[in-house]
Amino acid sequence: MDTQKPYVIGVDLGGTNTVFGIVDARGQIVAEDSIKTQTYKTAEEFVEAGVVCLRPLIAQMGGISQIAGMGIGAPNGNYYTGSIETAPNIAWAHDGIVPLAKMFSDRLEGLPVKLTNDANAAAMGEMAYGAARGMKNFIVITLGTGVGSGIVVNGQLVYGHDGFAGELGHVIMDRSPRGRVCGCGRKGCLETYCSATGVARTAREILANTDRPSLLRDKPAEDIESLDVSIAAGKGDEVANEIFQFTGKMLGEACADFAAFSSPEAFIFFGGLCKAGDLIMKPIEESYNRSVMNIFKGKAKFLVSGLMNANAAVLGASALGWDGAAEKN
Amino acid sequence: MDTQKPYVIGVDLGGTNTVFGIVDARGQIVAEDSIKTQTYKTAEEFVEAGVVCLRPLIAQMGGISQIAGMGIGAPNGNYYTGSIETAPNIAWAHDGIVPLAKMFSDRLEGLPVKLTNDANAAAMGEMAYGAARGMKNFIVITLGTGVGSGIVVNGQLVYGHDGFAGELGHVIMDRSPRGRVCGCGRKGCLETYCSATGVARTAREILANTDRPSLLRDKPAEDIESLDVSIAAGKGDEVANEIFQFTGKMLGEACADFAAFSSPEAFIFFGGLCKAGDLIMKPIEESYNRSVMNIFKGKAKFLVSGLMNANAAVLGASALGWDGAAEKN
Repeated sequence: MDTQKPYVIGVDLGGTNTVFGIVDARGQIVAEDSIKTQTYKTAEEFVEAGVVCLRPLIAQMGGISQIAGMGIGAPNGNYYTGSIETAPNIAWAHDGIVPLAKMFSDRLEGLPVKLTNDANAAAMGEMAYGAARGMKNFIVITLGTGVGSGIVVNGQLVYGHDGFAGELGHVIMDRSPRGRVCGCGRKGCLETYCSATGVARTAREILANTDRPSLLRDKPAEDIESLDVSIAAGKGDEVANEIFQFTGKMLGEACADFAAFSSPEAFIFFGGLCKAGDLIMKPIEESYNRSVMNIFKGKAKFLVSGLMNANAAVLGASALGWDGAAEKN
Repeated sequence: MDTQKPYVIGVDLGGTNTVFGIVDARGQIVAEDSIKTQTYKTAEEFVEAGVVCLRPLIAQMGGISQIAGMGIGAPNGNYYTGSIETAPNIAWAHDGIVPLAKMFSDRLEGLPVKLTNDANAAAMGEMAYGAARGMKNFIVITLGTGVGSGIVVNGQLVYGHDGFAGELGHVIMDRSPRGRVCGCGRKGCLETYCSATGVARTAREILANTDRPSLLRDKPAEDIESLDVSIAAGKGDEVANEIFQFTGKMLGEACADFAAFSSPEAFIFFGGLCKAGDLIMKPIEESYNRSVMNIFKGKAKFLVSGLMNANAAVLGASALGWDGAAEKN
């Protein structure tokens, strides 16, 4: 870390809001503000609004000379190019390559700016401030609308030769014709079973295929969300627990394959589903130890993120900011 | 590389022979000798015989002061501990931990000695002297009696937190009850389909399930080996080509999952099966591009090892020797 410059900027660029945070070396967010992501027609307008939002925060810290770097976590963010590449859910970035890191750097006196996707930023954050402090080999799995991942090997993020590594939501869990259709255009991806959407889908399937009683029947099937399953499971609902058993089985088996790849010290889970705690974490760990190769059995830790609060994404991105600053020095 | 010391020792410790080679910086084996691996009752006797074999080779180079380091590729070799850990096929190492790197170093005036498993040594060799020169992200897949792998990310071997990463022969390709039984005690592993043994098994299954004519019927089914399939496929035998199509389909689908992990620039194949050339390589690449996520399609290279000769394992191990020497400096 650049001891002359005590702060970094962490940016969480989401589908709705973009949050800018100023973060100190201990991982405290000392100032924060946000703009709407989608109110802007072009990337230029978005960056302009971002800089306008940032200026007073930077001034508060004593000016740009106090800032070591900036990190951005964004959907479809490519670390190598510093660009957002055809992000389907962002109006000004859905059909092209937006060199966002350079655009911000140019407007901020050449500040080093690094960019990566949300899950990789989460992994950086866990390593710097969260559950992976001191670890050199671990995998963060984000369970949200989709399933994302950030993989760390030898203390470094795995970006691959093109910047797109770490798409563990898209390993194939069911190669049979019964594999669930995935948004990526293929069938049987992990994401179709273990994302929030996948969990809701499992719920609807189980409810439709049996007439067992369940709290989940209190709602029209099409309105069931993964949060409903968490709540019902917490109340001891058998069907809800079976849904978590199935979800955990899939995740544990996937992690067993990931162990054969990079044998991580820990699997760290992030996202709404983790709020169910042991109800989901125990099935994952049991499935893993049942299915993994003997040499790996009982070795890996299964942890919930150490950053499960609203600002986790900002902290993750800020960790990338230190990274960029270190590279420049 | 230590320019003061122009040579390294590469050791290929196999189930039958252990080959010692002196290798120069350009990857030329300038001297070589071997001993039988299994004639010795204890690891101490084996190391003693190895040192006796090495002394004249070292003297020929001008003495130990000319040697920068030594690398050993051995079954169940653990890079972190420098030990062979319970190697089932080696009499003096099958039920315990043999600290082979230290044992050799102690007998060779404290020479830096590094040890890893065969597939990782192969990956080191490809990076230093073979098909992966200049690459920072690639995966070597060895198709032999088993299926092994050496994974390189950011220019470094992936050893994982315990030294056992890179067991890609044991990702699960068929989770159904029909998955083939694997030597690891589980079912459906990639190795059961794509090792030499797996290919022979596919041949026997296809021959038993149909009465289609095939050159492979010239032999009792139980005697068919993967080499027979290669020879028959080379002569245009339809059944043999179908066996390669099936094997390639499995390998291509597995590589599609590996891409989601580390997005390598190339997959490099090593071992007897590769001698079939395009007959096996084309089905692998076609299957990969059919099944991989869109963002990865058409990007990865599918290559045959650049070290397909008798001394590849010695060269691979020698690359590890430079590594150990560099660490010491």
